[in-house]
Amino acid sequence: MASMATFFSKTSYTSHSLTKNFETHYAPSFRVNVTSLGAKKKAYPRLRVSGGLIEPDGGKLVKLLVEESQRDSKKREALSLPRIKLSRIDFEWVHVLSEGWASPLPGFMKESEFLQTLHFNSLRLSDGSLVNMSVPIVLAIDDSQKHRIGESTKVALFDSRDNPVAILNDIEIYKHPKEERIARTWGTTAPGLPYVENAITHAGDWLIGGDLEVIEPIKYHDGLDRFRMSPAELREEFTRRNADAVFAFQLRNPVHNGHALLMTDTRKRLLEMGYKNPVLLLHPLGGYTKADDVPLDWRMKQHEKVLEDGVLDPETTVVSIFPSPMHYAGPTEVQWHAKARINAGANFYIVGRDPAGMGHPVEKRDLYDADHGKKVLSMAPGLERLNILPFKVAAYDKTQGKMAFFDPSRAQDFLFISGTKMRTLARNKENPPNGFMCPGGWKVLVEYYDSLVPSDNGRVPEAVPA
Amino acid sequence: MASMATFFSKTSYTSHSLTKNFETHYAPSFRVNVTSLGAKKKAYPRLRVSGGLIEPDGGKLVKLLVEESQRDSKKREALSLPRIKLSRIDFEWVHVLSEGWASPLPGFMKESEFLQTLHFNSLRLSDGSLVNMSVPIVLAIDDSQKHRIGESTKVALFDSRDNPVAILNDIEIYKHPKEERIARTWGTTAPGLPYVENAITHAGDWLIGGDLEVIEPIKYHDGLDRFRMSPAELREEFTRRNADAVFAFQLRNPVHNGHALLMTDTRKRLLEMGYKNPVLLLHPLGGYTKADDVPLDWRMKQHEKVLEDGVLDPETTVVSIFPSPMHYAGPTEVQWHAKARINAGANFYIVGRDPAGMGHPVEKRDLYDADHGKKVLSMAPGLERLNILPFKVAAYDKTQGKMAFFDPSRAQDFLFISGTKMRTLARNKENPPNGFMCPGGWKVLVEYYDSLVPSDNGRVPEAVPA
Repeated sequence: MASMATFFSKTSYTSHSLTKNFETHYAPSFRVNVTSLGAKKKAYPRLRVSGGLIEPDGGKLVKLLVEESQRDSKKREALSLPRIKLSRIDFEWVHVLSEGWASPLPGFMKESEFLQTLHFNSLRLSDGSLVNMSVPIVLAIDDSQKHRIGESTKVALFDSRDNPVAILNDIEIYKHPKEERIARTWGTTAPGLPYVENAITHAGDWLIGGDLEVIEPIKYHDGLDRFRMSPAELREEFTRRNADAVFAFQLRNPVHNGHALLMTDTRKRLLEMGYKNPVLLLHPLGGYTKADDVPLDWRMKQHEKVLEDGVLDPETTVVSIFPSPMHYAGPTEVQWHAKARINAGANFYIVGRDPAGMGHPVEKRDLYDADHGKKVLSMAPGLERLNILPFKVAAYDKTQGKMAFFDPSRAQDFLFISGTKMRTLARNKENPPNGFMCPGGWKVLVEYYDSLVPSDNGRVPEAVPA
Repeated sequence: MASMATFFSKTSYTSHSLTKNFETHYAPSFRVNVTSLGAKKKAYPRLRVSGGLIEPDGGKLVKLLVEESQRDSKKREALSLPRIKLSRIDFEWVHVLSEGWASPLPGFMKESEFLQTLHFNSLRLSDGSLVNMSVPIVLAIDDSQKHRIGESTKVALFDSRDNPVAILNDIEIYKHPKEERIARTWGTTAPGLPYVENAITHAGDWLIGGDLEVIEPIKYHDGLDRFRMSPAELREEFTRRNADAVFAFQLRNPVHNGHALLMTDTRKRLLEMGYKNPVLLLHPLGGYTKADDVPLDWRMKQHEKVLEDGVLDPETTVVSIFPSPMHYAGPTEVQWHAKARINAGANFYIVGRDPAGMGHPVEKRDLYDADHGKKVLSMAPGLERLNILPFKVAAYDKTQGKMAFFDPSRAQDFLFISGTKMRTLARNKENPPNGFMCPGGWKVLVEYYDSLVPSDNGRVPEAVPA
C-alpha cells in the first residue's frame, strides 16, 4: 500500500530500446500512452477532447435499464422465472453493469468474455479492436441453483429482500474455475484476499452469464444515492460545465492536502497545456471494501468538508460515487478503474503508487511491486485513448508547514505520513501536523474512529463495511 | 491430459450473441479465427498464402546470430565481461531466441515485455499492433550475480562447459516476482509444476533482460541436430517444396494412427479448399519435458519409423524439432506453441484437446478445462492471421480394426486408448489393438521402456530428460 502520497513524475520510465541491433519493431512500450504534463500541447492533438467528451468503449454507452413503461411487465415476468438471490457484491455488479460502466459488456460475462478477461485483460469487438476488461464480472451459482434453472433460457435476479431486480437473458452456464480465476486476477492464491474470501471461496462452482435487463434504477436508500451519478449523468454534467478535459481521481481513503495539491496542480498544468476548462472527477469507490478501510458514508462526509473548506474548487470539481466493489487486485484492477472512467467521460486518469494494492495476505511485503500498476496501466490494450498521469511523490514539508512535492536534495525536511500513521493519529484523537488535512475533514475522521465501540479487550474493532 | 485422440470438430462453438438487445459491438468471439475446414474456400481469401508464406510476427524474422566474421572478436569480448552460467533450460531459451522463434523479441525480456506477457499475453509494436507472447522468456540471476554485474551494461552467457554462448547487451535488471509469475502463467501456485520446480523455485530473485547476440549456432551434438531446423531454414524448405499452405502439428508424444489420420485428413481437406500443395510440419517439442514423457531421442526414432512405414507421406511432411522447453501451462502455453509456428511459416495450426495440459499437481483433476486451450487460442491477440484447426474426437473403431473419427451413435464400437494405457501396454511388452500404431513405431516404444533399468523395488524408474 502506498505509504506516502505520490504525485506526477517528471522523470518518466526509462526509454526501453529494443530495436537497435536487430531491426525489430517495438515501441518504447511504457510510454505508449503516458503523457508527460510538461510536454507541449501540440504533441497530443489526437488526445484532445474535441467536439465533445471521449467516446465510451465500443462507441456507445450501454444502458441495461428497461423502459419505464416496461417495468411492470418485466417485474411480472421476473416473478415467473427461476430465481437467483444476489449477494451484496452481486448486487453492486448489477448496478455497475446496468449503468454501462463496463460498456460494451451487456451483462454478466459468458465464458468467452471470462476467458478473454483472465488471459488478455481485454475483449475483442466485431471490428477487431479491443476494449479493456481486466476483472471478471461474473455471477456464481451452485449445483442446486443450476439444477433449478434446468432448461430455462432466462433467470430472474432478486435482492436480499426478495424484490426482483433484473432478468438475465440468453443465459450460458459454465464452470467456475476458482483457483485459476484467483491466480490470474490477483497473481497469488494465498489465503486472506478480502474479495476472494467474501465473493469467491464460498461461491458456487458454476458461473452464469447473459444479457441483463434491469427493472429499476439501482438505489441503496442510505442517504448517498444523490452522489451515485451514472456515466450518462456524469457526461451530461461535464457537458453542462463545458469541460474540455476531464481528469479522474479514484480513491477509497480520506482526502488530505497532498491529494488536494495533486489535483489542483493537475488542473493548472492542463490549463498550461491549453485546455480551457479541465474538470476534476473526484470519484470515491462506493462498493465493497475491506474491513479496515474507512466506510463510504464517513468518507463522503470527509470529502464534503474538504470541498466546504475550499481545499478544492467546487466549480471545477464533480464529486460522485463509483459503484464498483473493490478487488484489491493491483495492476489488474487499476485497469478496470481507468476503463470505467473512460465510460464516464474522463480522458485523463491520475494513477498513484501501488494502485489497488494491499499487503500480501501471508508474507511480510506488499502484494504488488509499487510501480507495476502505472506501468501495466500505461501499456494496457484498450486504454490507448486515455492519458495516464502518474504521481510524483509528495510529503509533509516541515519547513513550509504544508504538503509539497518531495525534494530528495533536502529529504530531511520531509515527513511521510502513511495511511496507518494517519489512522493511528485519528484513533488516538491526536492531531496531524498543521496543513496535513483541513480541520473540518480531520474532525470527521476523529469522529469516525470515536464512533467505533471498543471491544472487551479495549481494542477498537475493525469496521465492517455495509 | 487428453485421454483420447480428438480431431477436427465440425460443430464449432455456440455462437455467442451479445448484441441483440443493447446494440453493443461484440464479435462472436470464439469464432474470430477458427476456420471450419468444411467452409468454402472463397470465405477465407485474406488467410490464403499468396506470393509466399505467412509473414513472421513484426514483419521480419529476428536472427540474433553474429556474423561469422565477428565470432572471434565477440568471443574475446565475452571473455572480458561479467559472466552468467546458463542452466539447460536457459540454454534452450537462448536457442529459441537466437533463431527468431519468438520474433520480434530481440533477447531475454525486459520488464515491459515481462509485464505485457503476464497481463496481456501479447506485446505492442510501434505501429500499435500486437504480437502474441504468452510465456515469459526470462533469465534469472541471484543477488551475488547481480552484485558482480555491478554497473556493466553487458554480460556474457556461458554454457555448462564454460564456453561463451552469447552476449546480452543494454541489460536491465529487475525483480523476479516468482509467485506472481507462476500464478499468472499457470493459473495455480500449487507445488509440483515441473517447469516451476526446475526453473523458477530455486532461481534467483532478479531477472536480467537485454538484446542478445549469439556467437555460434546452437548445437547439442546428440545426433539430432540435423532435425533442428531454424524458422528461416523451415521457410526455405517450404518454399523449395512450393507449399501454398503449411499446417503445423505440435507434439511431445509418440505418433499413433489416430494422429496420422488427422494429419492426412487435414491435407485432404486443404486440397478440397483449393490449396495445391499443403505441407505438414510435424514438429515435436525438443526442449525440457517432464520426467514421465518419452525422451526426445526415442520419440524421434519412433517418428522416423512412422514415416518409413508409409503412415505419413514424406513428400508432403517435414519433420523437425521445436527447440522450446515445455511449460505445461495449458491455454497460456498453447499460444506460444502456435505463435512460434507462424514464425516458421505455418498458417494453419492443429490444436488438440487440453493442449499443453497435465494433471493438477495436488488435486485429482486435470489442471485445465480441456476446451479452454482451443477457445483461448482462437481469441488470442496477435494470432488473428493463423487458422486454428480444432480436433474432433477419434478412437479405435473395433468394427473396422483401425483409428477412426468417433461416432457417438455407435459409441460401443469405439475403444479409447489413453496415453497412460499406451505406456502401460508398451512397458509390459503387450501389443495394442492392430491398427493403433504402425508395428515399427510400436517396437521403438517397447524398446524404450525395456531400456529403463528397474530400480531395487522392481519398478521402472521415471525417465529423466537430458
